[in-house]
Amino acid sequence: MVDSFIYHNRTKIYFGNGELSHLHEELAKWGTRVLLVYGGGSIKKNGLYDKIVEEIDKAGLSGYEISGVKPNPEVPLAARGARLCREGGVDLILAAGGGSVIDTAKVIAGSTLYEGSPWDLVVNKVQPEKAVSLITIPTMAATGSEMNDCAVITNPVTHQKYGWSAEVLRPRVSFLCPENTYSVSPFQTACGSADILSHLLEVYLNQEEGFDSIDGYMEAMMRSVIRWAPIAMAEGNHEEARANLMWDSVWAINDLVESGRHVAWSCHGMEHELSAFYDIPHGLGLAILTPAFLRFALREETLPRLCQFAINVMGVKNKGDREKVARKGIKRLTKFLRETLELPAKLSDLSIDETLFERMADNVISWKGQEGVVQGFVPLTKEDIVEIYKACL
Amino acid sequence: MVDSFIYHNRTKIYFGNGELSHLHEELAKWGTRVLLVYGGGSIKKNGLYDKIVEEIDKAGLSGYEISGVKPNPEVPLAARGARLCREGGVDLILAAGGGSVIDTAKVIAGSTLYEGSPWDLVVNKVQPEKAVSLITIPTMAATGSEMNDCAVITNPVTHQKYGWSAEVLRPRVSFLCPENTYSVSPFQTACGSADILSHLLEVYLNQEEGFDSIDGYMEAMMRSVIRWAPIAMAEGNHEEARANLMWDSVWAINDLVESGRHVAWSCHGMEHELSAFYDIPHGLGLAILTPAFLRFALREETLPRLCQFAINVMGVKNKGDREKVARKGIKRLTKFLRETLELPAKLSDLSIDETLFERMADNVISWKGQEGVVQGFVPLTKEDIVEIYKACL
Repeated sequence: MVDSFIYHNRTKIYFGNGELSHLHEELAKWGTRVLLVYGGGSIKKNGLYDKIVEEIDKAGLSGYEISGVKPNPEVPLAARGARLCREGGVDLILAAGGGSVIDTAKVIAGSTLYEGSPWDLVVNKVQPEKAVSLITIPTMAATGSEMNDCAVITNPVTHQKYGWSAEVLRPRVSFLCPENTYSVSPFQTACGSADILSHLLEVYLNQEEGFDSIDGYMEAMMRSVIRWAPIAMAEGNHEEARANLMWDSVWAINDLVESGRHVAWSCHGMEHELSAFYDIPHGLGLAILTPAFLRFALREETLPRLCQFAINVMGVKNKGDREKVARKGIKRLTKFLRETLELPAKLSDLSIDETLFERMADNVISWKGQEGVVQGFVPLTKEDIVEIYKACL
Repeated sequence: MVDSFIYHNRTKIYFGNGELSHLHEELAKWGTRVLLVYGGGSIKKNGLYDKIVEEIDKAGLSGYEISGVKPNPEVPLAARGARLCREGGVDLILAAGGGSVIDTAKVIAGSTLYEGSPWDLVVNKVQPEKAVSLITIPTMAATGSEMNDCAVITNPVTHQKYGWSAEVLRPRVSFLCPENTYSVSPFQTACGSADILSHLLEVYLNQEEGFDSIDGYMEAMMRSVIRWAPIAMAEGNHEEARANLMWDSVWAINDLVESGRHVAWSCHGMEHELSAFYDIPHGLGLAILTPAFLRFALREETLPRLCQFAINVMGVKNKGDREKVARKGIKRLTKFLRETLELPAKLSDLSIDETLFERMADNVISWKGQEGVVQGFVPLTKEDIVEIYKACL
């Protein structure tokens, strides 16, 4: 049975097109001086920026902006934001963008009250007692950062890309408006969907017994992503597709699906190094790594779970020997990632060779708490990780 | 597609055997003077009462007790509790018991700051702005009241048993320890399980489109209850069975499964009158009414949903005509309630005849917001409700 656990998710969600009209109410409730964080300017093109400024004015808040957050965000920008907050007396952070923007905003929120480098907090050298309040407006269905307590950020000096979890980082309020994701390109929609699938697989593929119904929920979310992602790719402003992906993305990586299970984030650890060194989209890295990881993990003791996945998620008929069923499940998932989501299949397609594999593997196993072996669905040593990277060439 | 909605569930859950050892931390955080609410004394027999008193002492709180809450709790006891809180300066309520105890505690918490009758609040004549903080320790897996914003209570003068929903009623903290349900009898375990199933069916059986993954989660919870309830009935201290039922019970009736869907609580409205007039266990009333309601609701426009239920929950093979598949699903559910849960099949088994059916049906359709017709999976007029009651004789 699962270990004891605490479930506590304070984030208030407004879900639905048009719900952003409540933003000024929440802004007025949570702060007086706001820092708006966003990315490369797509929110200026699609009108979201203007709506946000209007709501900030309506709430009577003053404040600052920090823009130019790029995918695979880095610590220096967050450090700059934290300094700006300290000096400007900012008491509320508003993030509008994808996971990179929201995670940068979380690191700013969590390190404003600390004078040193935010990296000290990310690697748990220092524990944050408080953070500045955070409100988010996600513009992509992917990381689920808008309802969880985690931020992923890169140290550009060491090329380490780590996740930082702390309860104080959880947003106070998030506005999930499917319309804010209509302009996401088919490629980015595919990357985001691969990310959601990976979050679910990282928790679902587990040799610990969990709750039956939580397993069923994860299977249903995977089926939902498989159904709606291609529709959203083909028709960007398909409300139902965007809404399903948006609601799935937050519950896919949330305290509920874990419910006391230990999760090692095997593929995420390997992917973070890929995107930290080569700056590729996170979801794409996961889409390349996941099939290789599953083939590597296939063995007697993982067969029951892989068969359950094949049957309940990938629709494989439960007949023939178990290994065949499991392999068919992995094949169908691979086909979905390559053909339906149209994502590149190999690292070599991205001009990545084996030069850095050893160094990346070292970083993976030195992630806090791993102690030299990633203890996930199957244990992964440094050599195993290099082998999986090589299988992706 | 679903309507816009707000999701916000503030309750902090401690889940697992032994987690009650954290109670004193939460008591100290939330209050100084506590009112302990419990039922007929079973918590004194099984040792839970002593553990709670120890934790209250450890937290250094003083306070009062109110006991004797009975199933189908009534307003006068809650009014007495609210008066006690006002006069004694109580700032925290601690409920230890089943849904009746928790709901009574909620009504006390919500009406302490109001001098009139709590019934004014239940029928929304007055809106509560604040409530006293509430911590709960459920001793049964059934109503899910420990994580939602609703309380069900009876007016013994008018025989109206209504639900009262208000955000301020939501518990601050709940301790879900499966061990606290080990001594629940097989009959009460069956009633609780029928209640969980009914909560899910009330939301699931809906002609509005919802989220795919939420449908899947509800189906998985129903399958989980069907799997674990008989095991918990046969072996009271089966940790895994009790834990699954406990975690399902809170998520079965929670803001997440609704996620923007409108729910009319058709069977619950009819059942509340049964237990208000005849004082039968709520879950038993639902177990008798549900099959009759489903047979009544079966028609062309409800076939798709009833077939989905039959196939995905009751394991009916998807062949033959849709009506046959739907009927088979209803039959299997009925058999589960009667034979596996061993619950009485008919109102006449409980010495209930048709004398009060008209009066009860009048109360059902006069529930706030119904305007004469219950607009659920299928619309129910007064005559329809009488017909369903009669079909249960």
